[in-house]
Amino acid sequence: MTVNTGNEAPDMAAFLLSPEELRQRRNTKWNQFPPDVIPSFIADMDFRVAPPVQAAILQSVEREDYGYQMRDGAKADRMLAGAFAARMEEAFGWKASADLVLPVSDLVQATYAAILTWSGPGDGVILQVPNYPPFRETLQTTGRRLIPLHMDERDGTYVFDLDRLETQIDANTRIFVLCNPQNPTGRVFSRDELEAVLAFAEKHDLLVISDEIHAELIYGDRPHIPFPALSPAAAARCVLLNSATKSFNIPGLRCAVMYFGTPELKAAYQARIPLRLTGSVNSLGIDATVAAWTQGQPWLDAVLAHLRTARDHLCGRLASELPGLRFHPPEATYLLWMDCSDLGIQGSAGDFFLDRAGVGFSRGEDFLPGAESRVRCNFATSLPILDEIVDRMVAALRSNAR
Amino acid sequence: MTVNTGNEAPDMAAFLLSPEELRQRRNTKWNQFPPDVIPSFIADMDFRVAPPVQAAILQSVEREDYGYQMRDGAKADRMLAGAFAARMEEAFGWKASADLVLPVSDLVQATYAAILTWSGPGDGVILQVPNYPPFRETLQTTGRRLIPLHMDERDGTYVFDLDRLETQIDANTRIFVLCNPQNPTGRVFSRDELEAVLAFAEKHDLLVISDEIHAELIYGDRPHIPFPALSPAAAARCVLLNSATKSFNIPGLRCAVMYFGTPELKAAYQARIPLRLTGSVNSLGIDATVAAWTQGQPWLDAVLAHLRTARDHLCGRLASELPGLRFHPPEATYLLWMDCSDLGIQGSAGDFFLDRAGVGFSRGEDFLPGAESRVRCNFATSLPILDEIVDRMVAALRSNAR
Repeated sequence: MTVNTGNEAPDMAAFLLSPEELRQRRNTKWNQFPPDVIPSFIADMDFRVAPPVQAAILQSVEREDYGYQMRDGAKADRMLAGAFAARMEEAFGWKASADLVLPVSDLVQATYAAILTWSGPGDGVILQVPNYPPFRETLQTTGRRLIPLHMDERDGTYVFDLDRLETQIDANTRIFVLCNPQNPTGRVFSRDELEAVLAFAEKHDLLVISDEIHAELIYGDRPHIPFPALSPAAAARCVLLNSATKSFNIPGLRCAVMYFGTPELKAAYQARIPLRLTGSVNSLGIDATVAAWTQGQPWLDAVLAHLRTARDHLCGRLASELPGLRFHPPEATYLLWMDCSDLGIQGSAGDFFLDRAGVGFSRGEDFLPGAESRVRCNFATSLPILDEIVDRMVAALRSNAR
Repeated sequence: MTVNTGNEAPDMAAFLLSPEELRQRRNTKWNQFPPDVIPSFIADMDFRVAPPVQAAILQSVEREDYGYQMRDGAKADRMLAGAFAARMEEAFGWKASADLVLPVSDLVQATYAAILTWSGPGDGVILQVPNYPPFRETLQTTGRRLIPLHMDERDGTYVFDLDRLETQIDANTRIFVLCNPQNPTGRVFSRDELEAVLAFAEKHDLLVISDEIHAELIYGDRPHIPFPALSPAAAARCVLLNSATKSFNIPGLRCAVMYFGTPELKAAYQARIPLRLTGSVNSLGIDATVAAWTQGQPWLDAVLAHLRTARDHLCGRLASELPGLRFHPPEATYLLWMDCSDLGIQGSAGDFFLDRAGVGFSRGEDFLPGAESRVRCNFATSLPILDEIVDRMVAALRSNAR
């Protein structure tokens, strides 16, 4: 692992917010915990948004353009669908069709809708674990059976074992929920891994729900491959979910897309879920998303450079100062999944760091029942705040060891 | 009917937009038709929004407050629910419970969700006709049977006949969709009428879905009565739908509420429709709505004074210059439902006025199949634009008569 403890990426200084500015925000990240806690949990970034995103919002706000929306002579949804297709081609060389896009408010909503469409109560749904907690909740709420696909640690990374999965499924298993890049492990799956998922899905006739919300937050040499871009066979059994809200830091604006790999999948969905049951996306969310996808690259480049620096800086300090901590630097996402098993912490590591260090990580047990020894750190912040997080961790553990 | 052809309400001048400003907006109203057409269809008002609404949006935009939202130490949804309950008490003296509120993006979404919860395929759903077209669409899409309750013209107003309805329903009729105030007729139903609906619903064990989105746009001496406010028995079988988007002119921000008359109704709903299947409301929509409900009254007072003037001015000119036109001035809404049967128009009156007068009304046949002789006019605009609409109607009809 290369450790870079250098300065911020040159363009980033303008986008970093001070702790005072951050606390003025009314987001969950900076308000959930008391002011003496440094929040490092929910997936918000401590940066200003891309200037074109802000300009697009301001343009509508200044005109008080809050009416039933229309853009370019059609429903604003159409502009969003076109921007998504263009973005996919630009970012991943994948020719998506705007006709197969359906705007929704968020990926959890989309996951519910897809699970209700392609499975029935009691049916099995494969879900990578650990995972973003609301995905597990979708299975509980809808009465589907969770078939966990563990992200195993092997050779310094996280991998999944489809041979073992083979022994876990049955004829009533319907859906493979793939999270790629994976949250919280930060894996970007290789073409070989994705082909294996496809072969597995074909063998057992599964729909693949591919959550790709972190697709643009990747660091390594391995490119992200949208699942439907693998092959026509992959597209024919895939519903892809994406949104600019994660990579461009606008989750409160609630704008996401479902992408159906084929017209047949879209028709099957619409036969089950009435179009307007999932609501409609607000115009500012659409304007912001289109601006992000069409004009946001320079900002994203600066953010990615900073995040890479932040990741390497954080991992470098943790490796040298907390040798008992186990982790694998993520290939994507601004999230670091950490195993605190050997740090001498009793009970929940998340609770320990919150109570004893004043650092609010995401608790491992929320991502995987029983994983009290794990925490997820959000490193999308400034280097001084990251340093303060590490300093507090080190001090709390030293005090705990006495 | 009192005809007031006087000036705008004093406070209103600041809120009226010029045709140039209106055409700069990217809403459907001012972009659906070519520039030489005056749009008078979709329910957008040609006014600036309430200053507190704009201030609330700007406060979030200036801080780039686009993260996962939190307000007052809780999820922003909770602030919205509290503002709704407070508003209902202030506006209608009705004590609603914030705990029975569920935020959604719009009323059509909420109607789908309620219809799916409380009826099955083939079941009967009572719907007043004419009606807002998407409501009829919800029945077609979900395979429910439309049982039309006609708004009959009698004694200079529109009334419904529950005795006749009695002959139309059967044991598989489950839901009474009430639109109050009614779009497009502009009726505000009296306590007696609502009590009759309740008695009917009790006799046949129907759920009442009460769309009250126009509740704050009323002109007359008759107060609006929220259906659940009638009695505990009414609340026990009512799901009320409301939103600030209509009265405060922010439909693009997509924020509405479902209100369940009892905890039992809410539980029954949540057992059928997973909470997150309907998505989540964006933070700017919530901020704008809360500002509207808590600080928007002075603006609304000015708008209502203007709308009353506009209604009376429009109705006065139509009555004197187009004596063959039949209409009843609305008690609520900024919509005028007009019967053009005696004007000598062949085919669709909506098409006639669009093609021959350059006025884009809503077409009657979209509100009631077969009602080609009807159009719906949107009078939420300036008096000069209204005058131009009437002038164009008169000229087109004169030319048509030659």
